[in-house]
Amino acid sequence: MTKIARLNKAEGQLHIQINDEAVPQPGKHEVLVRIHSAGLNRAELLFMNGQYLVEPQLPSRIGVEGAGVIEALGENVSSFSIGDEVCITPNMGFEKYGVIGEHAKVPQSALVKKPQNLSWEEASSIWMAYPTAYGGLVYSGGLLEGAQQTIVISAASSSVGLPAIQIAKAHGATVIATSRSLKKVETLKEQGADFVVATQDEKWPEIVMDITDGKGFDIAFDPITGAFTSQLAEVAANGATIVSYGVLSMEETPLPLFPMMVRGLNFTGFHVVYHLLKNPERFAQAKNHILSRLIDGTYSPKIAKVFSLEQVIEAYSYMESGVQEGKIILKMI
Amino acid sequence: MTKIARLNKAEGQLHIQINDEAVPQPGKHEVLVRIHSAGLNRAELLFMNGQYLVEPQLPSRIGVEGAGVIEALGENVSSFSIGDEVCITPNMGFEKYGVIGEHAKVPQSALVKKPQNLSWEEASSIWMAYPTAYGGLVYSGGLLEGAQQTIVISAASSSVGLPAIQIAKAHGATVIATSRSLKKVETLKEQGADFVVATQDEKWPEIVMDITDGKGFDIAFDPITGAFTSQLAEVAANGATIVSYGVLSMEETPLPLFPMMVRGLNFTGFHVVYHLLKNPERFAQAKNHILSRLIDGTYSPKIAKVFSLEQVIEAYSYMESGVQEGKIILKMI
Repeated sequence: MTKIARLNKAEGQLHIQINDEAVPQPGKHEVLVRIHSAGLNRAELLFMNGQYLVEPQLPSRIGVEGAGVIEALGENVSSFSIGDEVCITPNMGFEKYGVIGEHAKVPQSALVKKPQNLSWEEASSIWMAYPTAYGGLVYSGGLLEGAQQTIVISAASSSVGLPAIQIAKAHGATVIATSRSLKKVETLKEQGADFVVATQDEKWPEIVMDITDGKGFDIAFDPITGAFTSQLAEVAANGATIVSYGVLSMEETPLPLFPMMVRGLNFTGFHVVYHLLKNPERFAQAKNHILSRLIDGTYSPKIAKVFSLEQVIEAYSYMESGVQEGKIILKMI
Repeated sequence: MTKIARLNKAEGQLHIQINDEAVPQPGKHEVLVRIHSAGLNRAELLFMNGQYLVEPQLPSRIGVEGAGVIEALGENVSSFSIGDEVCITPNMGFEKYGVIGEHAKVPQSALVKKPQNLSWEEASSIWMAYPTAYGGLVYSGGLLEGAQQTIVISAASSSVGLPAIQIAKAHGATVIATSRSLKKVETLKEQGADFVVATQDEKWPEIVMDITDGKGFDIAFDPITGAFTSQLAEVAANGATIVSYGVLSMEETPLPLFPMMVRGLNFTGFHVVYHLLKNPERFAQAKNHILSRLIDGTYSPKIAKVFSLEQVIEAYSYMESGVQEGKIILKMI
């Protein structure tokens, strides 16, 4: 038997329960992983509330990112062996797989070998956040090495925001990090932000215009959307791109037509599964970029807080509170 | 004395009056043109209702596109001479200049020599429609010669829609023209549309998916916006671009976040003045492309109806009715 987290009702994390279940059997193209650590993501809050792209099949497993050791192989698994230390990326269906628990069966296409220099916690914190930040900024936003772009990273203290700061800085950009208040200014500066702007200050657009000498930003990388998208458009440079990768505000998002037409603004969206993990060429390129910089220390994942498996509800509620800086982790061993 | 149209109240075309006024004197960098013909545009309906980017300075001149003969030069005019036959492009402030009347002073930066093979009506019908369609499709939409893209052109029978069909076809694209009904299907096919789809048929998105073998379109070029933008997003291919260049629906336009994120859709806007006429490199390239194809007959402007100066109110009301196919012209001589 093994401990497995299951969602019993699509009404949020309070409906998660830890069950004793039979150890799952890996099917064709699948492996069984003894989970050491799992990374939590905001998309799971939407999923657990029935507000995501796919619906949970109750009672549903949860969690799409982790790290552990392979304990068994299903049929047709050729690239991995029993005993391999692996990271589990979100390249699998939310509604079909889940990693929170002591064991999980996962498709081999979701696996990446664990970098040796990373701890288990770190290894389970990379493959949603760094590819989302890298792909969103580079493929969708047009971030270019040495192009001296100005990048606005909003909700910057999140698990994706901090890697986005590191990636933008490594490309030579000027980074304006936004956060509701200035409480997290120290961490944001430490991570490389050149400027930190508090969006609860109504004058924040003026501050961004001052910082950019009236020019506005070149790329915004934003998980908030809603009315915030129009506020971003006000301080966007001619031809700027606004990349949306989340729906934190949960509001309707009006497209600001006149600024878009007059200044030729671009609005686009990024989803790490569809635009990176499922694209072998991009995934190989991004993986190479991210791993080499994790190894040389240019990039360094920040763990906000580590919880035990039994604290899974508390961990998701902590995420919902928004006080964290970086990644929230569940440690199973 | 000369006849000049003026808007007396920012409440629409009913407040236009034809006055007898002194012939205007061209200032620095300006010329005086004896207007032969003027082309009408939807943007003027917004302007006359105080809903455009700039406000009318009452009593305001109106009209931003025309053709005629230069009668006098202001100071510092070097590229043009008295007697030159010219087209007046919209590269001038709506709130500062207006061409509807027998005379107009205009900045020399708004002038293009009139192509000899075009009639006065045709010469006054080109420089809003063709550059809008060309720039919107090529610069903002990413239309490429021979790339076998599928293009949706909505409100396709408008003065910009018809040139857009011609331009997309000349680039080797497949064109799906949309119109409210199928009344204008003959003209749209004649102009080159491969398919005509009536958007008053609720199943129109299914029809577009059938036409594209379930793939969806690559570029949409749309002046409607509002809820129509989300309908377009439903039938957009992965990575497709939706170029908005108008606000016909006058509704708020919600950004369809989930399709945008999952399929990496791009939403952008185009305004001919800001993204083409004011950009010397693009303007030169577009002018060269458009003129050479007007001369060899690849492109051919379609005049919907010609009115006299005295019929200016009727002409704008006719535009508002939406029954026209192509360009509405006022003929002064």
